[in-house]
Amino acid sequence: MQLLLIHSDFIEYEVKKSTPVAEKIGEDVMSGRMEEALTAFIAVEKPDESSVSYVIGKGVEEIEKVASQVKTNRIMLYPYAHLSSNLSSPKTAVDVLRALEAALAGKNYEVKRAPFGWYKAFSIKCKGHPLSELSRSIKPEGVETVTVSAPAEKAEVVSEAVKAEEKLKS
Amino acid sequence: MQLLLIHSDFIEYEVKKSTPVAEKIGEDVMSGRMEEALTAFIAVEKPDESSVSYVIGKGVEEIEKVASQVKTNRIMLYPYAHLSSNLSSPKTAVDVLRALEAALAGKNYEVKRAPFGWYKAFSIKCKGHPLSELSRSIKPEGVETVTVSAPAEKAEVVSEAVKAEEKLKS
Ligand SMILES: [Mg+2]
Repeated sequence: MQLLLIHSDFIEYEVKKSTPVAEKIGEDVMSGRMEEALTAFIAVEKPDESSVSYVIGKGVEEIEKVASQVKTNRIMLYPYAHLSSNLSSPKTAVDVLRALEAALAGKNYEVKRAPFGWYKAFSIKCKGHPLSELSRSIKPEGVETVTVSAPAEKAEVVSEAVKAEEKLKS
Repeated sequence: MQLLLIHSDFIEYEVKKSTPVAEKIGEDVMSGRMEEALTAFIAVEKPDESSVSYVIGKGVEEIEKVASQVKTNRIMLYPYAHLSSNLSSPKTAVDVLRALEAALAGKNYEVKRAPFGWYKAFSIKCKGHPLSELSRSIKPEGVETVTVSAPAEKAEVVSEAVKAEEKLKS
């Protein structure tokens, strides 16, 4: 599972058109907006299929960690196929996204989830502080989790982010 | 090189803070905005280092192709490390980004480039039509280019996008 976590002034979407793998949705989620939220762009991947509940647990953990660092309890889950070139089946993706939604809602986060398999217009404003853009790579159980591997800009950004995080904590 | 191409109502950024690999910049690019633009989020990758001019040429080609499909001549180049876990050196990244900027500007596109290695606030509005979100993976010369590999949502989205494109052409 690939996660791109963006601390957002706001995130907003509107469904435009279905694709052949579109999840069935009600009127209530045809559009959505959240202010001061952590937006989690998510790609569920092929290897996740053999380790669904483990990967869901890790995903919840990583999202909670960052939500707490940036001090928000609002989370927008947003399917984002472009984060991976090794995607899971649409069925697994929808199962995982729904499970993430249920798990986080059960922990008293305010959660919204943009529907899977639809063309959507969206608008987002990223805050720009050192912890406002983070990526996480979650591997199935038994595979070593490399949360971030990065020889260049990202490596530096991560070490900066850790410093910033330490400052927030102290 | 990983490209994520977003046909945007607008894209806007503002530099917040340097990282240790920050490119030196003037006041004029501390912030930027473009209306009705193709935003190209770009990660330059380690394998690109052995094939810089080839990869630049392919990058220009792919960006031009999509710009022409969505009928815009405005391009925002935006470095985006989170698109890859195998990044090039910062020096190569900046060289490639500058070369893309120069090549596209030389072809009469209106081009802006967000600076590399800075924390930035940004805001973007994606149009949401079938061609408004596309990803491309560019491999060095001699390596087979798999522009999009996708068993699930993305595959369907691509086939839909091609149909939409054919409709635009006819
Ligand atoms: Mg407009």
